[in-house]
Amino acid sequence: MIMVRKNSEATLYNFGAGPACLPSPVLNQIREDIPNWYEGMSIMEISHRLPVVMELTAKIEANLRTLLAIPEDFAVLCMAGGARTQFSTIPLNLLNGASNADYVITGHWSKLAFKDAGAYVLAHCAATTEASAFTTIPVDAELTFTQNAPYVHYTDNETIHGVEFTQYPKTDKWLVSDMTSNILTRPIDFSGFGLVYASAQKNLGIAGITVVIVRKSLLGNAHAFTPPTLNYALCDQNNSLLNTPPVFCWYVLGLVLEWVLKQGGMEAISKQVAQKAKLFYDLIDSSDFYTNPVAVNARSRVNIPFRLPSEVLESEFILQAEKVGLKQLKGHKVVGGCRASLYNAMPLAGVMALSEFMQHFEKTKG
Amino acid sequence: MIMVRKNSEATLYNFGAGPACLPSPVLNQIREDIPNWYEGMSIMEISHRLPVVMELTAKIEANLRTLLAIPEDFAVLCMAGGARTQFSTIPLNLLNGASNADYVITGHWSKLAFKDAGAYVLAHCAATTEASAFTTIPVDAELTFTQNAPYVHYTDNETIHGVEFTQYPKTDKWLVSDMTSNILTRPIDFSGFGLVYASAQKNLGIAGITVVIVRKSLLGNAHAFTPPTLNYALCDQNNSLLNTPPVFCWYVLGLVLEWVLKQGGMEAISKQVAQKAKLFYDLIDSSDFYTNPVAVNARSRVNIPFRLPSEVLESEFILQAEKVGLKQLKGHKVVGGCRASLYNAMPLAGVMALSEFMQHFEKTKG
Repeated sequence: MIMVRKNSEATLYNFGAGPACLPSPVLNQIREDIPNWYEGMSIMEISHRLPVVMELTAKIEANLRTLLAIPEDFAVLCMAGGARTQFSTIPLNLLNGASNADYVITGHWSKLAFKDAGAYVLAHCAATTEASAFTTIPVDAELTFTQNAPYVHYTDNETIHGVEFTQYPKTDKWLVSDMTSNILTRPIDFSGFGLVYASAQKNLGIAGITVVIVRKSLLGNAHAFTPPTLNYALCDQNNSLLNTPPVFCWYVLGLVLEWVLKQGGMEAISKQVAQKAKLFYDLIDSSDFYTNPVAVNARSRVNIPFRLPSEVLESEFILQAEKVGLKQLKGHKVVGGCRASLYNAMPLAGVMALSEFMQHFEKTKG
Repeated sequence: MIMVRKNSEATLYNFGAGPACLPSPVLNQIREDIPNWYEGMSIMEISHRLPVVMELTAKIEANLRTLLAIPEDFAVLCMAGGARTQFSTIPLNLLNGASNADYVITGHWSKLAFKDAGAYVLAHCAATTEASAFTTIPVDAELTFTQNAPYVHYTDNETIHGVEFTQYPKTDKWLVSDMTSNILTRPIDFSGFGLVYASAQKNLGIAGITVVIVRKSLLGNAHAFTPPTLNYALCDQNNSLLNTPPVFCWYVLGLVLEWVLKQGGMEAISKQVAQKAKLFYDLIDSSDFYTNPVAVNARSRVNIPFRLPSEVLESEFILQAEKVGLKQLKGHKVVGGCRASLYNAMPLAGVMALSEFMQHFEKTKG
């Protein structure tokens, strides 16, 4: 699966949390397509109004709809600015005059979404797991909602804290979910959702493009201060081509979606994701040397933070891992330690290589 | 200069207005750097927090400062969303409570900037050349300003209408200028400017990144509704890394800046730009077959719209040009006809090839 890199004898596995590794066939295709993607020009050098680019964007939407079984009453948008920009774009577009909105806080990113929303609305904390240092997921009975909130925002998977919802929060309101780090790892039941969004640099491609899947009935009520490029209704009316989009990022997204389809779609992918996660958690659970702080029923399948007995050992672990081609295992500074991100592009062989290395490291240092 | 494309016998010249052609050495470098840019990983797959990426972003700022002699009291920001997003971001950040702002309208883009500003402020039209079908540039005596406007927005070069300012509008207020299509084609005297911005897909790299050069004294007064990712002060405080940036677009910008430096910087580049424009306008002026609608003193050096005696001939011209490797000569639908964009990456040889083709076409059809 993984390509042997030009200047490296060893096979390399990149466990970075994002921007993350791309599937090798995708990288090869990108290289292959330079300088000639269309009539002697690269994808970076042609007008986004050419039919061949319009076809690419239409194909991206069609493939996303196929892979995630997105209902017809949802619009599929590609926007710039990253998921962080959506933290503002969501209240600007969806409040429709409401004075409050509900936010479930389960880690760094959902807390930031809550904070950013505060510029536009009385953001209500529907629940927070901060008391557990964000190692748990709230049960439905812990959630409180405000009467007029048009939506409940939650983060399906927390990239830094490594917690993931196993079922959607139960509410009569529309769910709005940040799925940046676990989109395309399992099917989505859209029936309770108003909006799902994900920036691309984990499971969808590269940084610079964010996919927004939004219920069409919620469009058209943006606040007057919403920049047109952040207006969902305008983006929908213009097929996400209101202005020049980040065309290269679109193109990589297109390649990744084709690759996911070739893997067998959501059914095959979700099995692979579960298999990789089980392999890794089994290793941790069978060890006294490695620990994962997250409650078992809240464990993320894709971002797995783990600790060693000391920070000195952690630094040595990361250093030695780098040397044998196991890359970007450093944890986020907010939580420290180590982290393995097992997105779709990470092959099972990579997780096995990491496991072997970890067992060896434990034997020599444990 | 131009690379012979893999699947094409002929040398190819791409006259597209943007996304536009990249310098061949830049394209070659991009290809060369896949899959291994840093320790076996591509630039698309590594954390934007790695020192090597931070160095890249610092180098981009340093090179921009060198090339354009940007004074120390200006911040240099890289943002997502394209120039269109700046149409909203500028009033959100710079109004500081003012109820009006002044806009000079000289074509499609400045008119749109004026329109988008209307969501935030009483936008005053300081002058418009619409009566001339945007074929002129207003003289200073035609400009009217409102008393409390904190800035005057104008578009230094109109990509569609092909008009360019030869001197800055005279005003006591801060100038805010869209230089998307002519940045890095000549030196800038920043003394009268509050802000200069340019999206990258013409002279700076590829679509997905916008450079904003803003006077630091104007920062810190953003409207409360400004999304943090669009807040200049926050971007400045975070070295444009408030959230995951479009790293690949940064990287291409970095390569283009290195290339411009190798060409000899602004002095050499501005001579080349003038030489290419003269060659092309001389051809048009010596012909009764080709016409350019723009007043001579308002002619753009980089975007040159031109007409043939009939639309039928124009279609045939574009088709035949495509066949001999002279690409993307179709004019924007707003004005029709043909357009040649002569950005920095277009070599003199390309303009000469186009001239020869045009002379030949005129002889056979004229």
